[in-house]
Amino acid sequence: MSPTPAPIDFYFDFSSPYGYLASHRIDAIAARHVRTVTWRPILLGSIFKVIGVQPLVSVPLKGDYARRDFERSARLHGVPFRLPARFPSPSRPIAAAYYALLARDEARARAFARAAYAAYFVDGLAPDSAELAADLGASVGADRADLVREIASPEVNARLDAATEEARARGVFGSPFVVVDGEPFWGNDRLEMVERWVERGGW
Amino acid sequence: MSPTPAPIDFYFDFSSPYGYLASHRIDAIAARHVRTVTWRPILLGSIFKVIGVQPLVSVPLKGDYARRDFERSARLHGVPFRLPARFPSPSRPIAAAYYALLARDEARARAFARAAYAAYFVDGLAPDSAELAADLGASVGADRADLVREIASPEVNARLDAATEEARARGVFGSPFVVVDGEPFWGNDRLEMVERWVERGGW
Repeated sequence: MSPTPAPIDFYFDFSSPYGYLASHRIDAIAARHVRTVTWRPILLGSIFKVIGVQPLVSVPLKGDYARRDFERSARLHGVPFRLPARFPSPSRPIAAAYYALLARDEARARAFARAAYAAYFVDGLAPDSAELAADLGASVGADRADLVREIASPEVNARLDAATEEARARGVFGSPFVVVDGEPFWGNDRLEMVERWVERGGW
Repeated sequence: MSPTPAPIDFYFDFSSPYGYLASHRIDAIAARHVRTVTWRPILLGSIFKVIGVQPLVSVPLKGDYARRDFERSARLHGVPFRLPARFPSPSRPIAAAYYALLARDEARARAFARAAYAAYFVDGLAPDSAELAADLGASVGADRADLVREIASPEVNARLDAATEEARARGVFGSPFVVVDGEPFWGNDRLEMVERWVERGGW
């Protein structure tokens, strides 16, 4: 009996355009190789503070390049994308809602994550709104009132902070960040490399 | 008569591992599409100072990731690589020698650039040495004494500084940085995208 391989870890921030693009691709990559993916939203801003890094779009030259590259990369992968008017944005309410949903139903949490990413990067609705989080939760079948309560609860927010801290301790410093069999890959533009790694088991 | 397409611009710093990896790949990519490449060494440190960015390996977490990724990327592309003991390093003497050689013979300048990259990333000889630059110049057929004089000359160094400033004005903020038909691409991991862009003329 060969052991079941561990899931691929997919770290992302709900306000990250490259995380959004990767969210459209990572499950299919894993499925092609009979692997599964664990989605792990984090608050990248907390990690940036610890390591002393500016958000990509705040850096001169790099910011202009990134804005152009978001659009170009989305077109290349056939993913609908519109840079939101409010960008970047905090994402705690949406990320907290994810962990609240996850505690009961992973499939529902993932459907919620997809809906939240589309809300931001297609419809322009920023992930810093508890109301939006509750609406999106309800749209995927969760109890709206429960979710409103949980988004504000210290326990759920502590779970999110622990997930972020655990990611940082593991070396995660960007979004998306994928770890497959202990090997780290940073960036949507490394998903081809991720797939090669999964296929060959390294090189 | 269809006009000859402009050369692809390949910006790089002689102390950049990803620039080194790209130097092994960019000419072949261009040649497959009957295009040529202009090699444009710059002093990335000067640009980093202007835009307020730290060298990659100085950033916590990112630095460890980068060191691992240099090796892994080199293995993937079959390029010999050993992270130098002195890394990163200033690279003015080597870059100045490049522009001195370029003024007389582009093919010799490119042979010199390849030799300088191999000296650093295979043999560990850092690009901040005028002696090394003179030796490498002589090894590709240049007059050693002329080169020693030129590496120290204000004119040659001003040419290098102008090339760096021109790159910055064009939006270059990393190494390698490739511009094809006005479209900018940052990183060795974007060369597949560069090739697709050349092939299709954009998307």
